[in-house]
Formats: sequence, structure tokens, C-alpha cells
Amino acid sequence: MNNLTLKVIGRVESRLTDLDSAPRQADEGAPEAWLVFEPDVLEALRNIRTGDEVVLITWLDRAQRDVLSVYPRGDTSRAQEGVFSTRSPHRPNPIGLHRVEITAIEGRRLRVRQLEALNGTPIIDLKPVLNEDIGQR
Amino acid sequence: MNNLTLKVIGRVESRLTDLDSAPRQADEGAPEAWLVFEPDVLEALRNIRTGDEVVLITWLDRAQRDVLSVYPRGDTSRAQEGVFSTRSPHRPNPIGLHRVEITAIEGRRLRVRQLEALNGTPIIDLKPVLNEDIGQR
Repeated sequence: MNNLTLKVIGRVESRLTDLDSAPRQADEGAPEAWLVFEPDVLEALRNIRTGDEVVLITWLDRAQRDVLSVYPRGDTSRAQEGVFSTRSPHRPNPIGLHRVEITAIEGRRLRVRQLEALNGTPIIDLKPVLNEDIGQR
Repeated sequence: MNNLTLKVIGRVESRLTDLDSAPRQADEGAPEAWLVFEPDVLEALRNIRTGDEVVLITWLDRAQRDVLSVYPRGDTSRAQEGVFSTRSPHRPNPIGLHRVEITAIEGRRLRVRQLEALNGTPIIDLKPVLNEDIGQR
């Protein structure tokens, strides 16, 4: 068994629609966005509160999966690096990690501050932040 | 398109084989382990160095995917919570996030300190830690 199937449990709603103009990280001018979950996972959201900081996990569906090396931050004056040393969306499994703050809740819609994911990006998981750090907003 | 396909890019080698005796978090007595990558992603690893702190992303393949509420830390004296407010492995997409330190590198095998994932757990991504924190070792 060498392939696994992810369920799309929601989608990002954002005014970001264009890969080229999207910020690379949330603290580089990303707008607020809505996380719109499927009705069948509403129960899993029931203890989420406004003000919570959470780890959003997405599937960066516009990424290239056959890329193993990239120029860091697209800078061709630098040496290429293996993608596992970078946060490039281009990688064998284009998983996005985003630390976000919940700023409003309307049923199965959560508003978040500063998200660099594009409109329509699939949501695959949501977790609380723990004491230890993992990196990336 | 409501399902996405993950590639298994490696596996965890660990002396942990039993879900019941595995620690819940790495800092609760988890042993060291090896991350064994598939030969076809070796290029993506080439800038990883001993001493690096990385975010390992796994697929917790022994989890239950139809669970939406759990007792936090298995404590039935507490109220059940929606899984998106917990780090329970049981959730619609059983993705594991682990902050680990690389302690040795042998080709496509990376040794890490303190990993709570079970032997054979599929590896799906590896990312550098950034300035911002996301939580969980």
C-alpha cells in the first residue's frame, strides 16, 4: 500500500486567486480568509472558539509534485536546495502548514487572520497549537 | 474532486509497535527512531544536516477516521471534545505533526531524537522549522 487517500474536509475562501501575487508567508501581507468546512465534520469543530490559535493543514493543489529541488524563495542567484529543507509548495505531497488565529465563527465557517493560501485550497486538518513550536505562520 | 492521493515517501523505524504503550507526545518518554525515505526522494533530502530541527509529517495509519469527538487524553472523566481541538490521532485525516531533531544521517536514513510514531508509520513530508511556532514536538 503506497498511496493513501485524503478527504477534503473544507475549502479556503480568500481574495487571493493568483499564485504569482500570493505572499510566501502569512506575515508578508496575507489577507484574512474564511475556512469553510463540510457539514459532515461540524461536530469535530464544536470546541473551537474565537481567539484560538490553531494549526491549519491544507493541500496546496496548485503545486507541482515532481519537483525535488528549488531555488530558495525563487531567488535564482542562490544555489538550489532539496525541497525538504524549504517551505516551497512544490514537493511530493504539497501539504501546507499555517498557524492562524480564529477571529470569528459562523456555524461551519471560521474566519482567520492572515492566511497565504489561495481561494479554493482544500482543507485537510485542524489542530490546536501545543507548547512546543514547529514553525511557520 | 473530493479525494486526494498522498504518496508514501518513507516509513518510520522504531521499537514502538503497540498503540496502547506508545507515548502521546514525544516529550513523554518517546524513543529515538529512524526515518527511512524512498530512494526516489533522496534529492529532496540533500540539504538536511545533523542537528537540524524539522517538522516531520506522518500518516497515523492505525487511527480511526470516523471519529469526530474524543475524551481528551483518553480521560473519560472529562467531557468529550471535537477532534479539531485535540491532538488525537483519530480524525478524518490522521495526519501527525512531529517536531524532531536530526541526530544522524546515513544516505536516505535519518535518525531522530524522541519520536512517538509507531514502527512502519508512513512519512508524507518534511519541512524546516520557521520562526513562528505551530506547536507539538
